Amino acid sequence: MTQKMKAQFITLEGSEGVGKTSNLEYIKSLLDSSGIEYIVTREPGGTPLSEALRDMLLGSDFKGMSDDTELLLMFAARAEHVAKVIRPALEKGQWVLCDRFTDATYAYQGGGRQLDMQRIQVLEQWVLGDLRPDLTLLLDASIDIGRERAGKRSEPDRFEQERDAFFNRVRDCYLARAGAEPDRIKVIDASGDLASVQQQVKLILDALLNE
Amino acid sequence: MTQKMKAQFITLEGSEGVGKTSNLEYIKSLLDSSGIEYIVTREPGGTPLSEALRDMLLGSDFKGMSDDTELLLMFAARAEHVAKVIRPALEKGQWVLCDRFTDATYAYQGGGRQLDMQRIQVLEQWVLGDLRPDLTLLLDASIDIGRERAGKRSEPDRFEQERDAFFNRVRDCYLARAGAEPDRIKVIDASGDLASVQQQVKLILDALLNE
Repeated sequence: MTQKMKAQFITLEGSEGVGKTSNLEYIKSLLDSSGIEYIVTREPGGTPLSEALRDMLLGSDFKGMSDDTELLLMFAARAEHVAKVIRPALEKGQWVLCDRFTDATYAYQGGGRQLDMQRIQVLEQWVLGDLRPDLTLLLDASIDIGRERAGKRSEPDRFEQERDAFFNRVRDCYLARAGAEPDRIKVIDASGDLASVQQQVKLILDALLNE
Repeated sequence: MTQKMKAQFITLEGSEGVGKTSNLEYIKSLLDSSGIEYIVTREPGGTPLSEALRDMLLGSDFKGMSDDTELLLMFAARAEHVAKVIRPALEKGQWVLCDRFTDATYAYQGGGRQLDMQRIQVLEQWVLGDLRPDLTLLLDASIDIGRERAGKRSEPDRFEQERDAFFNRVRDCYLARAGAEPDRIKVIDASGDLASVQQQVKLILDALLNE
């Protein structure tokens, strides 16, 4: 890696139970051993206000909110996160490693909940302008594997309560986006054991670090 | 008024201290005596979620939020209010009397805080589609009169702490909007005593009720 490489904005995507948490730790260890300065954050969330909005979105207090409200709150949380955390870090030369970003809005709200993709696109453009992740790692596994692993977790949140059909639509949408943007979105087969997944992650990160 | 008159969506606008509260009461008395079924609501607010967002917007917990976040939260509160309160009432044939609506976003965020009007317009279109107030009563008074009256009120909120120049821009924006949409927005001179203001309000409401 040259000293001048611009700070990279890396996002991690995938539905429940595909192993985002353990792979996030692995990516951190790779960045650490390359001596890269970075921050780790997540969506929805990443700032006090965005986390408060996350609670509104995922909690049960406002479960019957309208679809439009849901999208606007999601993008409000993102706007704050981008303005206060992501852009400032990148401008300081720190890499940003973010657990979920706009692809998740397309996959969950657009694919899963079948909200209008073009309406999501209008908000994406309004909020992000030309900011997009440099690299997105999409952990992909069949719904059965994902749900089985997720089943070991705590109380399911609002989105996790949805049906299998929902998760299939989420997965299809993620894969379609990867198909449309193969340079940015790298699909990782997350159905195997952790070692095999980490091997794929390492190959992609190494390629980026050696650019 | 014919039995078939469609339910009217009436908004009340104006900056601090122009007498919105007392005039709202007066409008209610006029609708009552005409036997009209109506609801009274306000923005930001009007639903439990929208009121929670109002607290975020006007309170001090998240005072440093980014401009984009502020606009998205304002329109999220509005989207919920429109979906859960305003549209259902109008569809049932109930008139809606709303203390502030989108004109206030243009005036306060666009005029006062000088955020990009075109960006506000994108969100307005995204959220409202073709829904607009049928009639907007704009209570107008010079900043001196408004601030003097507002001075009698409780602890100033985030917006009320801004400077005179701010309120002049708010007023100018309201008046410019009224100039551009004279059929919808009726300017009421709110500098005189309550009786003279009520007389103007009554003339406008009578004209609407006798259409």
